[in-house]
Amino acid sequence: MRHVNPESTRAEVRRQQILDAASTCFVRDGFHGTSVAKLAKTAGMSAGHIYHFFANKEAIIAALVERQLKQSLRIVEQVDSADDLLEVMIERVELGVHEQTNLDRAALEIEILAEAARNPEVATIVRAADREKRARLRTLLERMRQAHGLANLDAQPTIEVLMALFQGLLIRTIQDPGIDAAALLPVLQRTVRGLLVGDGTSRRETPSKSA
Amino acid sequence: MRHVNPESTRAEVRRQQILDAASTCFVRDGFHGTSVAKLAKTAGMSAGHIYHFFANKEAIIAALVERQLKQSLRIVEQVDSADDLLEVMIERVELGVHEQTNLDRAALEIEILAEAARNPEVATIVRAADREKRARLRTLLERMRQAHGLANLDAQPTIEVLMALFQGLLIRTIQDPGIDAAALLPVLQRTVRGLLVGDGTSRRETPSKSA
Repeated sequence: MRHVNPESTRAEVRRQQILDAASTCFVRDGFHGTSVAKLAKTAGMSAGHIYHFFANKEAIIAALVERQLKQSLRIVEQVDSADDLLEVMIERVELGVHEQTNLDRAALEIEILAEAARNPEVATIVRAADREKRARLRTLLERMRQAHGLANLDAQPTIEVLMALFQGLLIRTIQDPGIDAAALLPVLQRTVRGLLVGDGTSRRETPSKSA
Repeated sequence: MRHVNPESTRAEVRRQQILDAASTCFVRDGFHGTSVAKLAKTAGMSAGHIYHFFANKEAIIAALVERQLKQSLRIVEQVDSADDLLEVMIERVELGVHEQTNLDRAALEIEILAEAARNPEVATIVRAADREKRARLRTLLERMRQAHGLANLDAQPTIEVLMALFQGLLIRTIQDPGIDAAALLPVLQRTVRGLLVGDGTSRRETPSKSA
């Protein structure tokens, strides 16, 4: 069904092989501990081959971030094409938890973030992807606000808190490898619902003093 | 008022100087890019002096994690000593946001986590501190459950989600340095309240299909 050039398909497979090998190396040895020679050996090809696809290690990070972004946006698209945006979004929390509590993935993301914190080139890559994700979520939340009449939904801070919640799971997975993802799910779903719908009544809780 | 040995105070000041210098170096050059020689230079003392206080770089990370843990537990203690646990906890969200959106601090924590993901010795340090924090939060949430009659509060997953929420801010700060902490605050406070109190009515939202 898909129209593909076999030559470019083979190139794409090679490219993905390099990205998989880079993920393995970055997780095991860190970005700085990974030489192109070591990466080439892990990928089972020559260093020249690596350079044919990627100018340097930063370009590999850019491709890894792009691959991750596409995966995240795929979830957003699934939600966006649904009849009931809110319910499908809450249903998709399960997929998000599943992805964010994978230890290898968490290790890779945290390594890239650590590099972004001191390498301006990597920071630029990571921040551009983040902007794209926020923009896409913003469109989705605007649609959700209209479809569900969520007048109090303030998209920008809600998106930051939603992203903090899911990205925080990467840190939880490293700090608490025994984390029980299944037990988290209902609490996370309730939290996401609360973030999007609010408490609906803007009621105030019990008074401050137990006087 | 405090009874201190001037000798041990001087030693403690030296020790803190090393930790501050280590924070600077780890953020700028990474854990692996920081030699003890470089660290000594940044701290303005000899490498021998560093080794007098710390056996190796892992021991420095252990002390940094311990210092950070103490700071986190201090917030928990403040909440725990309050009359109205719930309201004081929600009030303290502001302090948490302030701390977690500091870029230098975020960079240091992420660097330590990246190292924990591949260095078993650092993983052990980070995970022990995390266990202590969770245990302390668990006691607090139990007290809160009794004081406020929060029968539905399931401490273990609630703690994981609370921690994900605040630790996720470290990632947000690196990925979106223009993050508006003030705008986040009410959304986060509402979210923390929702996590602790629940929606109170266990109502179900709109049905799944718009049939």
